[in-house]
Amino acid sequence: MFKSLVDKMLANSKVYSELYLSHISIDSVVFGFHDDCLKVLLTRFEGEDNWALPGGYVQHEENIYDAAKRILQQRTGATNIFLKQFETFGKTNRSEGFFEGLPDDLWQKKRFISIGYYALIDFTTLSPEIDMFSDACSWHDSADLPGFSMDHKEIYDAALLQLRRDLNYKPVGYTLLPEKFTMPQLQRLYEVILGKELNRGNFYRKMMRYNILQKLEETRKGGAHKAANYYSFDKQRYEEALNNGFQESW
Amino acid sequence: MFKSLVDKMLANSKVYSELYLSHISIDSVVFGFHDDCLKVLLTRFEGEDNWALPGGYVQHEENIYDAAKRILQQRTGATNIFLKQFETFGKTNRSEGFFEGLPDDLWQKKRFISIGYYALIDFTTLSPEIDMFSDACSWHDSADLPGFSMDHKEIYDAALLQLRRDLNYKPVGYTLLPEKFTMPQLQRLYEVILGKELNRGNFYRKMMRYNILQKLEETRKGGAHKAANYYSFDKQRYEEALNNGFQESW
Repeated sequence: MFKSLVDKMLANSKVYSELYLSHISIDSVVFGFHDDCLKVLLTRFEGEDNWALPGGYVQHEENIYDAAKRILQQRTGATNIFLKQFETFGKTNRSEGFFEGLPDDLWQKKRFISIGYYALIDFTTLSPEIDMFSDACSWHDSADLPGFSMDHKEIYDAALLQLRRDLNYKPVGYTLLPEKFTMPQLQRLYEVILGKELNRGNFYRKMMRYNILQKLEETRKGGAHKAANYYSFDKQRYEEALNNGFQESW
Repeated sequence: MFKSLVDKMLANSKVYSELYLSHISIDSVVFGFHDDCLKVLLTRFEGEDNWALPGGYVQHEENIYDAAKRILQQRTGATNIFLKQFETFGKTNRSEGFFEGLPDDLWQKKRFISIGYYALIDFTTLSPEIDMFSDACSWHDSADLPGFSMDHKEIYDAALLQLRRDLNYKPVGYTLLPEKFTMPQLQRLYEVILGKELNRGNFYRKMMRYNILQKLEETRKGGAHKAANYYSFDKQRYEEALNNGFQESW
């Protein structure tokens, strides 16, 4: 590990041990949608080749959801974040090798069980910030991912699988799309999350059945095809669907 | 709290602090199926009126999944357990009031973040055992639940919701039904989990489409109706469906 990173970790060990609960961390998989691609926000520890999920710790008097939100706000400046816990990762060897050579009484080197959240963030409103331990924080295309630190690839894969499953009973898009969007844009968002093409007619019918869209008067002009209708989400119905779920299929 | 329970907690505080990770606990919602009813296994701390989920702690060198399995095996003697992590509970006030009056340096009184698992266990193979802190451990009908300790009702509700959702992409029944069963028995299992009646024809068609059942030669005789066919799960296809999921609906 880079010497300057080790020094900063050692210098913060005591403060962290007083500020945060031991053994518990939070890692978030932050998805964005841009240029018809699914993006993920990754950070890189100073001097490392591999990338990590933005993460942090839980304060003694802080709910875990609030901790996840605080950590992401500090990292991204974003306030409009959809955040969902999906799995907790607790294998004994999950950070194996990462802290090699560092003293055993370093607080950060203890065993940490990490609560995974996935986040959907409006790509355009966000300015990724590096923290004191990292030298980069940037968006990566989900179709072209770099190497990951520790067990973070496993956490990323689990988040994407959960997001795909959630598409079956939850609306997705409010924090990922601009306020008004066309049906092809919405379909493209679903396609990049699911990693497969969808039939246009089926997608349209299914989406309209969910009854969460408002068709706007305005159309998008230009291009070779006929003008495309703009839609926006009906915020109230969207929230209801988020809380109650779509009709289950059984 | 009952004096004898307090004494036992105090006596074990130091041993526990050495044996287990601080701040992390596991609580499991154990479902069984019997007499056409969905059952849940609950335990009761000595002298308490309310009931709790069977739970425990994580050893320093133990994966969290292994900890969940160990805790349940100690409690139930069962070895054929389907165990799935579904949510981690970390509100600051989740045990509020429970340890009132006990010394603040009691290890068990620290803040604990609890990893929730749900388990599906064959009702007939299981002999619930009380541990040193409880005076009862027994099955309760999900339609007639007692009062719960701490936030355990919230954990129970979340487990049932997750199990319902999982029915849409995972097979359920292998550890809940006897080895051979009739289609009406399988349908009744789905109905008590979902809390609603299902159409017989639709259920049959959907279940056959999943391709996880073997129709046996043997039929169940007796009763007013014509003999019902027995089925069993095709273990290999069942495992495949469990690992890969049924076709998602998008």
